[in-house]
Amino acid sequence: MSGTWEMRVIARAHNDYTGKFGIPRQSGLVSEVLTRIVFEPEYRVPEALRGIEGFSHLWLIWVFDQAEREGWSPTIRPPRLGGNTRVGVFASRSPYRPNPIGLSSVRLLGVERTADAGLTLVVSGADLADGTPILDVKPYLPYADAHAGEAGFTEALGDQRLEVSVPEELLEQIPETSRKGLLEVLSRDPRPGYQRTAGRAYGLSFAGMNIRFTVDADRLTVTDVQPEGQHPGNPRA
Amino acid sequence: MSGTWEMRVIARAHNDYTGKFGIPRQSGLVSEVLTRIVFEPEYRVPEALRGIEGFSHLWLIWVFDQAEREGWSPTIRPPRLGGNTRVGVFASRSPYRPNPIGLSSVRLLGVERTADAGLTLVVSGADLADGTPILDVKPYLPYADAHAGEAGFTEALGDQRLEVSVPEELLEQIPETSRKGLLEVLSRDPRPGYQRTAGRAYGLSFAGMNIRFTVDADRLTVTDVQPEGQHPGNPRA
Repeated sequence: MSGTWEMRVIARAHNDYTGKFGIPRQSGLVSEVLTRIVFEPEYRVPEALRGIEGFSHLWLIWVFDQAEREGWSPTIRPPRLGGNTRVGVFASRSPYRPNPIGLSSVRLLGVERTADAGLTLVVSGADLADGTPILDVKPYLPYADAHAGEAGFTEALGDQRLEVSVPEELLEQIPETSRKGLLEVLSRDPRPGYQRTAGRAYGLSFAGMNIRFTVDADRLTVTDVQPEGQHPGNPRA
Repeated sequence: MSGTWEMRVIARAHNDYTGKFGIPRQSGLVSEVLTRIVFEPEYRVPEALRGIEGFSHLWLIWVFDQAEREGWSPTIRPPRLGGNTRVGVFASRSPYRPNPIGLSSVRLLGVERTADAGLTLVVSGADLADGTPILDVKPYLPYADAHAGEAGFTEALGDQRLEVSVPEELLEQIPETSRKGLLEVLSRDPRPGYQRTAGRAYGLSFAGMNIRFTVDADRLTVTDVQPEGQHPGNPRA
């Protein structure tokens, strides 16, 4: 009996979540952003996906590879509880856990044949950053996996949406296939939960672009869009 | 970017599934068998479970440590399809996958304080063998995790139950707390899917007992019960 198990990266996620912020806190919350599951060369075997189109949803088991860790802490402070209330790590879906394993159910939109990466899965509703390593893909089985039930501290959390305003000339700088996704991500309020000051300028990396915005009450306004890597002067920072 | 991740065993499952057969094929199918999640000493920290009682269901992410593996195969033959039809490994929940990771949703019945193992979780509906290593425990979030949908090849599979008959003197040899669980496991037909011959004698290890039985049409009859390790002569073997 071994105390550790070595798991191999079988695939990686590719999508517009190119930065640290704006990634949905759970799967299924943002449906307009597509994620492609690209298998590593060793696992690029068409047969391994035989029959997968018959399932409407899949599970992804993946690695929180961007979560900085120094050992583990028994409690975490969920951002959506304002960052002040402590909850046991096993009562949370926090990335900061003994094993940095993430679990997401996603909608399977299709299987795509690509020239360079073999068959890839196209899914929506993922809450994974671009490049995230994936350890397993499983079919979602409603008869075993779907339950109504009590959801602890997460039940009190509302589903507030922001009204999003983007000047036409800024929207045009975003690749067309990424626009709907960006609008949905912004409507979900991508600010850190414990850092919400009216009038403050925030930045978000999405589809390789740096999106600047402010939030006033329930309205989010995009103020600037720049290709990543360029950092224009920020009058408020 | 590393191609492998080392995951640590944080807990182990303890239950009456002491053998290779009779373990439900998915979670939630057998509710009368209790499983205790006993944390490894390093993770035996009461604070890590703070707030977990507010959730009705949990996810267990665990290791198929009993699945023999020699590399991986792109397709598997699901026992419930009779063992002859091949399905892609990522379209199945087979244990024989690139990473031997299992995923199960279980009902949380309570948190028990024990003298020797600290706080343990008592759950029902698990499909894990006794002693199974667990890598993560997460709360089940219905708003993100529950979906209706299509379930591919598993949709055609019925929910056949067997009528179970156990002579009183044999039932009494089973520990009282394990009897309901055994009856439910037997009603689920614990025979291997590709090995179903009327009149044949089968054996099942449950709660450390060796249960012998036959199946004739829809009726399962227990013929002998012995403490594990004793192997009485089997007239048919």
